[in-house]
Amino acid sequence: MAEDMFLFWGSGSPPCWRAMIALEEKGLQGYKNKLLNFEKGEHKQPEVLEVNPRGQLPAFRHGEKKVNESLAICMYLESQFKSRGTQLIPDKAADQALVYQRAFEGLVLQQKLVDLLMYARHVPEEERQETTMKRNMEAASAEAQLWEGHVQEGSCLAGKDFTMADVVVYPVVALMFRLGLSTEKYPKLSQYNDFLKDRPSIKATYPPHWLESPPTSDLLKSL
Amino acid sequence: MAEDMFLFWGSGSPPCWRAMIALEEKGLQGYKNKLLNFEKGEHKQPEVLEVNPRGQLPAFRHGEKKVNESLAICMYLESQFKSRGTQLIPDKAADQALVYQRAFEGLVLQQKLVDLLMYARHVPEEERQETTMKRNMEAASAEAQLWEGHVQEGSCLAGKDFTMADVVVYPVVALMFRLGLSTEKYPKLSQYNDFLKDRPSIKATYPPHWLESPPTSDLLKSL
Repeated sequence: MAEDMFLFWGSGSPPCWRAMIALEEKGLQGYKNKLLNFEKGEHKQPEVLEVNPRGQLPAFRHGEKKVNESLAICMYLESQFKSRGTQLIPDKAADQALVYQRAFEGLVLQQKLVDLLMYARHVPEEERQETTMKRNMEAASAEAQLWEGHVQEGSCLAGKDFTMADVVVYPVVALMFRLGLSTEKYPKLSQYNDFLKDRPSIKATYPPHWLESPPTSDLLKSL
Repeated sequence: MAEDMFLFWGSGSPPCWRAMIALEEKGLQGYKNKLLNFEKGEHKQPEVLEVNPRGQLPAFRHGEKKVNESLAICMYLESQFKSRGTQLIPDKAADQALVYQRAFEGLVLQQKLVDLLMYARHVPEEERQETTMKRNMEAASAEAQLWEGHVQEGSCLAGKDFTMADVVVYPVVALMFRLGLSTEKYPKLSQYNDFLKDRPSIKATYPPHWLESPPTSDLLKSL
């Protein structure tokens, strides 16, 4: 089962981490995998492009089936292995509605973060505009505040059980704190970050370079 | 069933249209709904914010359950009404993997389009940079070319059956042609656009203002 699976991944990427948490939660340990270095451009090599033509990670194969978008991988695993490991999508309509809502809202939070990081890191300095940076920061801040309101103390994101919502959102929240998000300004998100960090699926997949070296940016400290 | 549902929507928005196609395909005609005018800012009024705090459309309620992100609505409807209407997610693993991959990839295509439109329309002119516009256009063009390669003549997106992949992607493709995408440069996408436009779920939900008035932009004509 898991031995037919292969994952290309990069350390610290929320989409990669999300796929790995889902694999753990579904009890699919033992999948083959290869850690690639984004900074060396290893995600653009032919063996990755053969699975994911965009040259992005994660790139995932289950036998001959290729699935790359991180939430597609998670949904596929949940659907194919519904009765195995953690049930990530509950059956009851009200619970299910909330899990879908939070999981897909998680992609909005991620996008605001991507907009901010891409602009700050990849737009050439001479082209960068203060006003655009400010607008990106304001959008990310409004979004982070919304999530601060979503989180309940001592709870997962969509209630007491760990669900697909956590699979999607936890890696984004953890990255935000790694990038300097204030634990004082976002106390509930900070509690949520701590609440899940020792969960086996998260501990087993924690970005190795985060454990080895301190952050190189505090871009979010004023968010 | 459908009479417990309420949808706030805007004409021509791919996320709104997607939710409406899913409702049709699942045989949930008769849901209550209200068409709002984006240009008048009607999507920011309290009755919408009460369902969707971001003040974005679609905003959807099923009884007391609120689901707003468009793909969350579609997945929720498919899951709750699996055996009703069109089966949008196939059971067979290989088919399912492809449907999930294409459906979630559809959000990537949509995002490239959003990046382009938001920059061209909402960044103040004095702040806009030629180089950024050019980079956004190149990214959208590379993405459109990838999709031109995905489409097969006389077929839906993930094979012969209409699936969640079409629910997600069709409204984006249709919008791209509405915004001037070249039918000569993208002949397969153009065929796909035509192939599905008379499908009952799409015809019944076609953006009313597209039927009434000509496009006001040809932003994508050089894509």
